[in-house]
Amino acid sequence: MCTDAAALVEAIRSLAVRGAPLLGIAGAYGVALAAARGFDVAEAARALEGARPTAVNLSVGVRRAEAAHRAELARTGDPTAAAVAALAAARALHQEDAEASARMAAHGLALLDELLPGGGHRILTHCNSGSLVSGGEGTAFAVALAAHREGRLRRLWVDETRPLLQGARLTAYEAARSGMAYTLLTDNAAGSLFAAGEVDAVLIGADRIAADGSVANKVGSYPLAVLARYHHVPFIVVAPVTTVDLDTPDGASIEVEQRPGFEVTEVAAPQVPVTGAGGGVPVAPLGTQAYNPAFDVTPPELVTAVVTEEGAVSPVTAEALAEMCARSSAGAPPTARREP
Amino acid sequence: MCTDAAALVEAIRSLAVRGAPLLGIAGAYGVALAAARGFDVAEAARALEGARPTAVNLSVGVRRAEAAHRAELARTGDPTAAAVAALAAARALHQEDAEASARMAAHGLALLDELLPGGGHRILTHCNSGSLVSGGEGTAFAVALAAHREGRLRRLWVDETRPLLQGARLTAYEAARSGMAYTLLTDNAAGSLFAAGEVDAVLIGADRIAADGSVANKVGSYPLAVLARYHHVPFIVVAPVTTVDLDTPDGASIEVEQRPGFEVTEVAAPQVPVTGAGGGVPVAPLGTQAYNPAFDVTPPELVTAVVTEEGAVSPVTAEALAEMCARSSAGAPPTARREP
Repeated sequence: MCTDAAALVEAIRSLAVRGAPLLGIAGAYGVALAAARGFDVAEAARALEGARPTAVNLSVGVRRAEAAHRAELARTGDPTAAAVAALAAARALHQEDAEASARMAAHGLALLDELLPGGGHRILTHCNSGSLVSGGEGTAFAVALAAHREGRLRRLWVDETRPLLQGARLTAYEAARSGMAYTLLTDNAAGSLFAAGEVDAVLIGADRIAADGSVANKVGSYPLAVLARYHHVPFIVVAPVTTVDLDTPDGASIEVEQRPGFEVTEVAAPQVPVTGAGGGVPVAPLGTQAYNPAFDVTPPELVTAVVTEEGAVSPVTAEALAEMCARSSAGAPPTARREP
Repeated sequence: MCTDAAALVEAIRSLAVRGAPLLGIAGAYGVALAAARGFDVAEAARALEGARPTAVNLSVGVRRAEAAHRAELARTGDPTAAAVAALAAARALHQEDAEASARMAAHGLALLDELLPGGGHRILTHCNSGSLVSGGEGTAFAVALAAHREGRLRRLWVDETRPLLQGARLTAYEAARSGMAYTLLTDNAAGSLFAAGEVDAVLIGADRIAADGSVANKVGSYPLAVLARYHHVPFIVVAPVTTVDLDTPDGASIEVEQRPGFEVTEVAAPQVPVTGAGGGVPVAPLGTQAYNPAFDVTPPELVTAVVTEEGAVSPVTAEALAEMCARSSAGAPPTARREP
């Protein structure tokens, strides 16, 4: 439990709280928490924003609650009213995210049905993008879940997603809980599935989408995009509009978080006694240096479509994304308008 | 320690003895062992051959010792002399393999220097192909080692190679022991290295090469081949001539071993108490089904060159491979001719 913003920063850094949309919601609540407990709101906001660099949603959520706080403080001069406004902003974001999930799922399923008229979708996904990362049912996973509910999901292929195994630990759990037909695989084995014609579409989430349509997502997404292209399989990115960052011009401008090597050289095993420097079971020689980027960047030419709560953008171009963002801010959903 | 062929079969199945060339040597010694201890040699040979289906070297080694045994028995009628002949055949294969390693390393390094005239090679490898799989210094790893000794290896990128982490556990160990500059990575992160222009060549071994040049190797090799092609990076397969199986016409004819799901759903951690059904630490929900092919197949059009002790074949065509095999059996190396 996080009772102050510093504890939340640590929870975000250690990935106890993770997943792009959830980071935004958590960031907004973190600002509200700082305000309610009388901490320096701007300082807390900067610490929260800096906890992880790649997911833009974190920064968007933090800034939204901070702006609500600042506006109310300027208007009334009352810190309590300002804290209430920050909390209202966080709650609105939370609610909007849940509604956005439902709309992404509907748009994504419509796109799948259009691309794959035969039905019986066999979908490959990477990392975790379900209700554990969202105020609602998630992003890419929500689309698969919608297909499952409509009886049109033949199989969900779940990449285990090394190094932290979010696929094995989280997506497999969500798939099992939902009664989906799912199969786990090492990230390595996806190539064999493509070659055997066993993948109809790839669905992933995103941590940041640059203005040109470059997609930062969990490391291992880009190799899937290359495989999908080589095998003529649609590669679909599902994310809320807030993931599109028009201030980041292109893929090269996206800061990719480099994480500690022990995530690779040790396997986290919470059930067993601590043995390695990182608290896990060592699987490589002592002193082994590891390359451990948390994300990779897929260029827009490999992305078949970006699906948001506003609909599907395909082909993925800077113009189409900018237009979608403009449409989204012009016609904000009811709950967003309700926000003070 | 294996004191009979049945124990060796189990050691091969459980991967205590693994790696294509070493499987051939172990299979030949296994036949010699069965002969020396008075077991039914044909029965032991079939059990050894059947222990793992994909690496052709196993079958080649077993049959060579078996043929030497059968010929000597037919000639002399003396089981002891026949057992000695089987052992001599195993020893000859062992010695040839060591010599083949040295020749593969020289041919491979010459090819690298030709393809990458700038030097300072940054080589990505997958799984384990060094002295732990060979009578000598191995296959792909031997080439990297030769480059290192000549001062022309800038970095060895080591794929951890899920599910069994042969890269993290074995290749990292061999690289560290040899004083190479090496970095470990999750298999997922290779895409980021390619995108950043940090890979000059991919070097891998092989478990079977079909007559058309299709290459079966550790699962995860094929995705690297697709990435290498997309990034215009040479993809080089290093293996002894015995890995080329002219009786297997193409990739579709290669039997790919499917291994137990617990290798994926549990992480092997020998240092910790047994907890899961497979003896490892569970990382996925109970009952999760896993897809776990041990190998994948890379089609010849994605392979820049096949390097054997006879030299480099490039482009990889059925004709060029057949010619190399014919040249190899016509001009067998001195140790092969010495064999009874």
